[in-house]
Amino acid sequence: MAQRYEIRFSGSGGQGLITAGIILAEAVAIVEGRHAAQSQSYGPEARGGASKSEVIISDEPIDYPKATKVNVCLAMTQEAADKYAGDIVSGGILLTDSDLVKNPPAGDFKHYQFPIIRTAKEQLGREIVANVLALGAIIALTEVVTRDSGEQAVLKRAPAAFKELNQKAYALGYETMKALMSAN
Amino acid sequence: MAQRYEIRFSGSGGQGLITAGIILAEAVAIVEGRHAAQSQSYGPEARGGASKSEVIISDEPIDYPKATKVNVCLAMTQEAADKYAGDIVSGGILLTDSDLVKNPPAGDFKHYQFPIIRTAKEQLGREIVANVLALGAIIALTEVVTRDSGEQAVLKRAPAAFKELNQKAYALGYETMKALMSAN
Repeated sequence: MAQRYEIRFSGSGGQGLITAGIILAEAVAIVEGRHAAQSQSYGPEARGGASKSEVIISDEPIDYPKATKVNVCLAMTQEAADKYAGDIVSGGILLTDSDLVKNPPAGDFKHYQFPIIRTAKEQLGREIVANVLALGAIIALTEVVTRDSGEQAVLKRAPAAFKELNQKAYALGYETMKALMSAN
Repeated sequence: MAQRYEIRFSGSGGQGLITAGIILAEAVAIVEGRHAAQSQSYGPEARGGASKSEVIISDEPIDYPKATKVNVCLAMTQEAADKYAGDIVSGGILLTDSDLVKNPPAGDFKHYQFPIIRTAKEQLGREIVANVLALGAIIALTEVVTRDSGEQAVLKRAPAAFKELNQKAYALGYETMKALMSAN
Protein backbone atom coordinates (compact mmCIF):
# COMPACT_ATOMS: atom_id res chain seq x y z
CA MET A 1 0.00 0.00 0.00
CA ALA A 2 1.12 3.52 -0.70
CA GLN A 3 2.57 5.61 2.13
CA ARG A 4 0.20 8.47 2.94
CA TYR A 5 1.24 11.49 4.91
CA GLU A 6 -1.50 13.84 6.05
CA ILE A 7 -1.21 17.47 7.12
CA ARG A 8 -4.09 19.60 8.35
CA PHE A 9 -4.01 23.40 8.54
CA SER A 10 -6.77 24.72 10.82
CA GLY A 11 -7.82 28.08 12.17
CA SER A 12 -10.34 30.68 11.14
CA GLY A 13 -11.42 31.87 7.71
CA GLY A 14 -9.28 34.72 6.47
CA GLN A 15 -6.05 33.36 7.96
CA GLY A 16 -4.97 32.07 4.56
CA LEU A 17 -4.85 28.41 5.52
CA ILE A 18 -6.36 27.17 2.26
CA THR A 19 -3.59 28.99 0.43
CA ALA A 20 -0.97 27.45 2.73
CA GLY A 21 -2.35 24.00 1.87
CA ILE A 22 -2.34 24.70 -1.85
CA ILE A 23 1.25 25.97 -1.74
CA LEU A 24 2.36 22.82 0.09
CA ALA A 25 0.53 20.57 -2.41
CA GLU A 26 2.18 22.44 -5.28
CA ALA A 27 5.61 22.09 -3.66
CA VAL A 28 5.07 18.33 -3.47
CA ALA A 29 3.56 17.83 -6.93
CA ILE A 30 4.65 20.62 -9.24
CA VAL A 31 8.11 21.27 -7.78
CA GLU A 32 9.04 17.76 -6.64
CA GLY A 33 6.89 15.68 -9.05
CA ARG A 34 5.25 13.48 -6.44
CA HIS A 35 1.51 13.05 -5.75
CA ALA A 36 -0.55 15.40 -3.62
CA ALA A 37 -4.21 16.10 -2.98
CA GLN A 38 -5.55 19.15 -1.25
CA SER A 39 -9.09 19.64 -0.02
CA GLN A 40 -11.46 21.61 2.17
CA SER A 41 -14.86 20.54 3.40
CA TYR A 42 -17.26 23.18 4.55
CA GLY A 43 -20.20 22.51 6.82
CA PRO A 44 -22.30 24.80 8.98
CA GLU A 45 -19.23 25.59 11.13
CA ALA A 46 -17.78 27.50 8.16
CA ARG A 47 -20.31 30.27 8.73
CA GLY A 48 -18.98 30.65 12.27
CA GLY A 49 -15.53 31.09 10.80
CA ALA A 50 -13.81 27.78 11.56
CA SER A 51 -11.64 26.66 8.67
CA LYS A 52 -9.52 23.68 7.78
CA SER A 53 -7.49 22.71 4.78
CA GLU A 54 -5.87 19.32 4.27
CA VAL A 55 -2.96 18.06 2.24
CA ILE A 56 -2.31 14.39 1.50
CA ILE A 57 1.10 13.44 0.19
CA SER A 58 1.91 10.11 -1.38
CA ASP A 59 4.30 8.37 -3.72
CA GLU A 60 1.29 7.00 -5.63
CA PRO A 61 -2.00 8.45 -6.97
CA ILE A 62 -4.28 9.46 -4.12
CA ASP A 63 -7.76 8.04 -4.24
CA TYR A 64 -9.19 9.53 -1.06
CA PRO A 65 -8.23 13.18 -0.67
CA LYS A 66 -9.54 13.83 2.84
CA ALA A 67 -7.45 13.25 5.93
CA THR A 68 -8.17 10.05 7.82
CA LYS A 69 -5.14 9.82 10.10
CA VAL A 70 -3.61 13.23 10.60
CA ASN A 71 0.17 13.11 10.96
CA VAL A 72 0.59 16.81 11.60
CA CYS A 73 -1.95 19.45 12.57
CA LEU A 74 -1.54 23.20 12.69
CA ALA A 75 -4.10 25.02 14.84
CA MET A 76 -4.20 28.80 14.66
CA THR A 77 -7.17 29.32 17.02
CA GLN A 78 -8.45 27.67 20.20
CA GLU A 79 -11.65 26.60 18.43
CA ALA A 80 -9.64 24.92 15.67
CA ALA A 81 -7.41 23.13 18.21
CA ASP A 82 -10.47 21.85 20.08
CA LYS A 83 -12.24 20.76 16.91
CA TYR A 84 -9.52 19.48 14.63
CA ALA A 85 -6.62 18.15 16.72
CA GLY A 86 -8.58 15.14 17.94
CA ASP A 87 -7.57 12.76 15.18
CA ILE A 88 -3.82 13.25 15.18
CA VAL A 89 -2.14 9.83 14.97
CA SER A 90 -0.20 8.44 17.86
CA GLY A 91 3.30 9.90 17.60
CA GLY A 92 2.05 12.77 15.39
CA ILE A 93 2.64 16.48 15.83
CA LEU A 94 0.49 19.46 16.84
CA LEU A 95 1.73 23.00 16.18
CA THR A 96 -0.24 25.86 17.71
CA ASP A 97 -0.11 29.63 17.89
CA SER A 98 0.80 30.13 21.55
CA ASP A 99 -1.04 33.46 21.84
CA LEU A 100 -4.29 32.15 20.42
CA VAL A 101 -4.37 28.58 21.72
CA LYS A 102 -4.21 28.98 25.49
CA ASN A 103 -5.40 25.45 26.28
CA PRO A 104 -3.75 23.12 23.80
CA PRO A 105 -5.42 19.69 23.77
CA ALA A 106 -3.40 16.82 25.21
CA GLY A 107 -2.83 13.54 23.41
CA ASP A 108 -0.26 11.03 22.32
CA PHE A 109 1.52 13.50 20.07
CA LYS A 110 4.30 16.07 20.24
CA HIS A 111 3.24 19.65 20.81
CA TYR A 112 5.14 22.67 19.61
CA GLN A 113 4.05 26.27 19.91
CA PHE A 114 5.17 29.80 19.22
CA PRO A 115 3.35 33.09 18.63
CA ILE A 116 2.96 32.67 14.88
CA ILE A 117 0.76 35.67 14.13
CA ARG A 118 2.66 37.97 16.52
CA THR A 119 5.97 36.92 14.94
CA ALA A 120 4.65 37.89 11.50
CA LYS A 121 3.39 41.21 12.82
CA GLU A 122 6.43 42.15 14.88
CA GLN A 123 9.25 40.84 12.70
CA LEU A 124 7.77 41.46 9.25
CA GLY A 125 5.22 44.17 9.96
CA ARG A 126 2.53 42.14 8.17
CA GLU A 127 0.14 39.78 9.89
CA ILE A 128 -1.13 38.71 6.46
CA VAL A 129 1.89 36.47 5.84
CA ALA A 130 1.38 34.49 9.06
CA ASN A 131 0.08 31.64 6.86
CA VAL A 132 3.35 31.45 4.91
CA LEU A 133 5.33 31.73 8.13
CA ALA A 134 3.30 28.80 9.50
CA LEU A 135 3.93 26.86 6.29
CA GLY A 136 7.68 27.38 6.70
CA ALA A 137 7.39 26.02 10.23
CA ILE A 138 5.39 22.98 9.07
CA ILE A 139 7.95 22.18 6.39
CA ALA A 140 10.78 22.51 8.92
CA LEU A 141 8.91 20.18 11.28
CA THR A 142 8.03 17.52 8.75
CA GLU A 143 10.56 17.82 5.93
CA VAL A 144 7.88 16.52 3.55
CA VAL A 145 9.51 18.71 0.90
CA THR A 146 12.91 20.36 0.91
CA ARG A 147 13.27 23.90 2.18
CA ASP A 148 14.02 24.99 -1.36
CA SER A 149 10.98 23.28 -2.91
CA GLY A 150 8.72 25.01 -0.39
CA GLU A 151 10.30 28.36 -1.19
CA GLN A 152 9.84 27.85 -4.94
CA ALA A 153 6.16 27.06 -4.44
CA VAL A 154 5.71 30.11 -2.19
CA LEU A 155 7.31 32.40 -4.78
CA LYS A 156 5.25 30.92 -7.59
CA ARG A 157 1.98 31.86 -5.85
CA ALA A 158 3.00 35.24 -4.40
CA PRO A 159 1.98 38.37 -6.33
CA ALA A 160 5.00 40.18 -7.81
CA ALA A 161 4.89 43.03 -5.29
CA PHE A 162 4.91 40.60 -2.35
CA LYS A 163 7.49 38.02 -3.36
CA GLU A 164 10.18 39.31 -1.01
CA LEU A 165 7.80 39.58 1.94
CA ASN A 166 6.58 36.03 1.39
CA GLN A 167 10.11 34.72 1.02
CA LYS A 168 11.06 36.34 4.33
CA ALA A 169 7.98 34.96 6.06
CA TYR A 170 8.74 31.46 4.81
CA ALA A 171 12.39 31.66 5.94
CA LEU A 172 11.42 33.07 9.33
CA GLY A 173 8.89 30.28 9.95
CA TYR A 174 11.38 27.64 8.87
CA GLU A 175 14.23 29.00 11.02
CA THR A 176 12.07 29.66 14.08
CA MET A 177 10.81 26.09 13.99
CA LYS A 178 14.27 24.57 13.52
CA ALA A 179 15.50 26.61 16.51
CA LEU A 180 12.55 25.43 18.62
CA MET A 181 13.17 21.81 17.64
CA SER A 182 16.81 21.90 18.56
CA ALA A 183 15.93 23.49 21.92
CA ASN A 184 13.56 20.61 22.78
CA MET B 1 -29.02 9.22 0.07
CA ALA B 2 -27.90 12.80 -0.16
CA GLN B 3 -28.11 14.60 -3.49
CA ARG B 4 -24.61 15.32 -4.75
CA TYR B 5 -23.90 17.86 -7.45
CA GLU B 6 -20.40 17.90 -8.92
CA ILE B 7 -18.66 20.68 -10.80
CA ARG B 8 -15.19 20.46 -12.29
CA PHE B 9 -13.09 23.46 -13.36
CA SER B 10 -10.25 22.40 -15.65
CA GLY B 11 -7.59 24.15 -17.66
CA SER B 12 -3.98 25.00 -17.10
CA GLY B 13 -2.14 26.13 -13.97
CA GLY B 14 -2.20 29.89 -13.58
CA GLN B 15 -5.74 30.29 -14.95
CA GLY B 16 -7.10 30.68 -11.42
CA LEU B 17 -9.35 27.63 -11.52
CA ILE B 18 -8.57 26.55 -7.96
CA THR B 19 -9.68 29.98 -6.80
CA ALA B 20 -12.87 29.72 -8.86
CA GLY B 21 -13.63 26.42 -7.14
CA ILE B 22 -12.97 27.84 -3.68
CA ILE B 23 -15.21 30.84 -4.34
CA LEU B 24 -18.03 28.56 -5.48
CA ALA B 25 -17.64 26.32 -2.41
CA GLU B 26 -17.71 29.41 -0.17
CA ALA B 27 -20.85 30.70 -1.91
CA VAL B 28 -22.54 27.36 -1.19
CA ALA B 29 -21.34 26.92 2.39
CA ILE B 30 -20.48 30.28 3.91
CA VAL B 31 -23.04 32.43 2.09
CA GLU B 32 -25.88 29.90 1.74
CA GLY B 33 -25.14 27.62 4.70
CA ARG B 34 -25.20 24.32 2.81
CA HIS B 35 -22.46 21.70 2.51
CA ALA B 36 -19.58 21.89 0.04
CA ALA B 37 -16.23 20.24 -0.48
CA GLN B 38 -13.52 21.49 -2.76
CA SER B 39 -10.43 19.57 -3.81
CA GLN B 40 -7.56 19.28 -6.21
CA SER B 41 -5.44 16.22 -6.90
CA TYR B 42 -2.06 16.67 -8.45
CA GLY B 43 -0.19 13.96 -10.28
CA PRO B 44 2.70 14.07 -12.73
CA GLU B 45 0.46 15.95 -15.24
CA ALA B 46 0.55 18.97 -12.91
CA ARG B 47 4.17 19.59 -13.93
CA GLY B 48 3.02 19.83 -17.54
CA GLY B 49 0.54 22.48 -16.48
CA ALA B 50 -2.81 20.64 -16.58
CA SER B 51 -5.00 21.67 -13.68
CA LYS B 52 -8.36 20.73 -12.27
CA SER B 53 -10.35 21.80 -9.29
CA GLU B 54 -13.57 20.15 -8.13
CA VAL B 55 -16.52 21.28 -6.07
CA ILE B 56 -19.09 18.92 -4.56
CA ILE B 57 -22.34 20.42 -3.32
CA SER B 58 -24.78 18.60 -1.07
CA ASP B 59 -27.52 19.13 1.44
CA GLU B 60 -25.70 16.78 3.81
CA PRO B 61 -22.09 16.37 5.00
CA ILE B 62 -19.85 15.21 2.18
CA ASP B 63 -17.81 12.15 2.88
CA TYR B 64 -16.01 11.76 -0.43
CA PRO B 65 -14.75 15.12 -1.74
CA LYS B 66 -13.57 14.06 -5.20
CA ALA B 67 -15.85 14.09 -8.22
CA THR B 68 -17.20 10.70 -9.25
CA LYS B 69 -20.00 11.71 -11.65
CA VAL B 70 -19.36 15.15 -13.04
CA ASN B 71 -22.55 17.13 -13.63
CA VAL B 72 -20.83 20.14 -15.13
CA CYS B 73 -17.32 20.55 -16.50
CA LEU B 74 -15.54 23.75 -17.50
CA ALA B 75 -12.57 23.23 -19.83
CA MET B 76 -10.34 26.20 -20.52
CA THR B 77 -7.78 24.37 -22.71
CA GLN B 78 -7.90 21.62 -25.32
CA GLU B 79 -5.75 19.38 -23.12
CA ALA B 80 -8.16 19.82 -20.22
CA ALA B 81 -11.17 19.09 -22.42
CA ASP B 82 -9.53 15.90 -23.71
CA LYS B 83 -8.46 14.77 -20.26
CA TYR B 84 -11.26 15.83 -17.96
CA ALA B 85 -14.56 15.94 -19.90
CA GLY B 86 -14.74 12.15 -20.21
CA ASP B 87 -16.73 11.49 -17.07
CA ILE B 88 -19.52 14.00 -17.47
CA VAL B 89 -22.81 12.29 -16.59
CA SER B 90 -25.43 11.64 -19.21
CA GLY B 91 -27.43 14.86 -19.55
CA GLY B 92 -24.64 16.92 -17.99
CA ILE B 93 -23.01 20.08 -19.31
CA LEU B 94 -19.64 20.97 -20.82
CA LEU B 95 -18.58 24.62 -21.08
CA THR B 96 -15.46 25.40 -23.09
CA ASP B 97 -13.45 28.42 -24.14
CA SER B 98 -14.19 28.49 -27.88
CA ASP B 99 -10.81 30.02 -28.79
CA LEU B 100 -8.79 27.46 -26.86
CA VAL B 101 -10.82 24.30 -27.31
CA LYS B 102 -11.00 23.83 -31.06
CA ASN B 103 -12.09 20.19 -30.92
CA PRO B 104 -14.59 19.84 -28.11
CA PRO B 105 -15.17 16.19 -27.17
CA ALA B 106 -18.56 14.75 -28.05
CA GLY B 107 -20.76 12.92 -25.60
CA ASP B 108 -24.22 12.63 -24.15
CA PHE B 109 -24.11 16.12 -22.64
CA LYS B 110 -24.93 19.68 -23.61
CA HIS B 111 -22.07 21.77 -24.91
CA TYR B 112 -21.82 25.52 -24.58
CA GLN B 113 -18.91 27.67 -25.63
CA PHE B 114 -17.78 31.26 -25.85
CA PRO B 115 -14.38 32.96 -25.92
CA ILE B 116 -14.03 33.27 -22.15
CA ILE B 117 -10.47 34.58 -21.96
CA ARG B 118 -10.90 36.92 -24.94
CA THR B 119 -14.08 38.34 -23.42
CA ALA B 120 -12.19 39.12 -20.19
CA LYS B 121 -9.37 40.74 -22.15
CA GLU B 122 -11.48 42.73 -24.58
CA GLN B 123 -14.37 43.80 -22.38
CA LEU B 124 -12.58 44.26 -19.08
CA GLY B 125 -9.01 44.78 -20.18
CA ARG B 126 -7.80 42.08 -17.79
CA GLU B 127 -7.32 38.44 -18.73
CA ILE B 128 -6.62 37.68 -15.07
CA VAL B 129 -10.33 37.76 -14.17
CA ALA B 130 -11.27 35.16 -16.81
CA ASN B 131 -11.66 32.68 -13.93
CA VAL B 132 -14.30 34.84 -12.22
CA LEU B 133 -16.00 35.43 -15.56
CA ALA B 134 -16.11 31.64 -16.06
CA LEU B 135 -17.48 31.22 -12.54
CA GLY B 136 -20.30 33.66 -13.33
CA ALA B 137 -21.09 31.60 -16.42
CA ILE B 138 -21.09 28.33 -14.46
CA ILE B 139 -23.45 29.78 -11.85
CA ALA B 140 -25.76 31.07 -14.59
CA LEU B 141 -25.72 27.61 -16.20
CA THR B 142 -26.33 25.59 -13.06
CA GLU B 143 -28.03 27.92 -10.58
CA VAL B 144 -26.40 25.92 -7.80
CA VAL B 145 -26.27 29.18 -5.84
CA THR B 146 -28.13 32.42 -6.48
CA ARG B 147 -26.52 35.12 -8.55
CA ASP B 148 -26.26 37.25 -5.42
CA SER B 149 -24.61 34.51 -3.30
CA GLY B 150 -21.98 34.02 -5.98
CA GLU B 151 -21.30 37.73 -6.09
CA GLN B 152 -20.94 37.93 -2.32
CA ALA B 153 -18.41 35.11 -2.35
CA VAL B 154 -16.47 36.74 -5.21
CA LEU B 155 -16.30 40.06 -3.34
CA LYS B 156 -15.24 38.37 -0.11
CA ARG B 157 -12.16 36.86 -1.77
CA ALA B 158 -11.19 39.76 -4.04
CA PRO B 159 -8.43 42.09 -2.82
CA ALA B 160 -9.78 45.59 -2.03
CA ALA B 161 -8.26 47.18 -5.13
CA PHE B 162 -9.87 44.60 -7.42
CA LYS B 163 -13.38 44.27 -6.03
CA GLU B 164 -15.02 46.28 -8.79
CA LEU B 165 -13.14 44.46 -11.55
CA ASN B 166 -14.12 41.09 -10.10
CA GLN B 167 -17.72 42.16 -9.70
CA LYS B 168 -17.82 43.22 -13.35
CA ALA B 169 -16.20 39.97 -14.49
CA TYR B 170 -18.71 37.93 -12.53
CA ALA B 171 -21.68 39.88 -13.92
CA LEU B 172 -20.33 39.66 -17.47
CA GLY B 173 -19.89 35.89 -17.26
CA TYR B 174 -23.34 35.48 -15.76
CA GLU B 175 -25.06 37.67 -18.38
CA THR B 176 -23.15 36.24 -21.34
CA MET B 177 -24.14 32.74 -20.35
CA LYS B 178 -27.80 33.62 -19.78
CA ALA B 179 -27.87 35.22 -23.25
CA LEU B 180 -26.27 32.12 -24.80
CA MET B 181 -28.77 29.84 -23.07
CA SER B 182 -31.77 31.76 -24.24
CA ALA B 183 -30.39 31.76 -27.81
CA ASN B 184 -30.14 27.95 -27.78
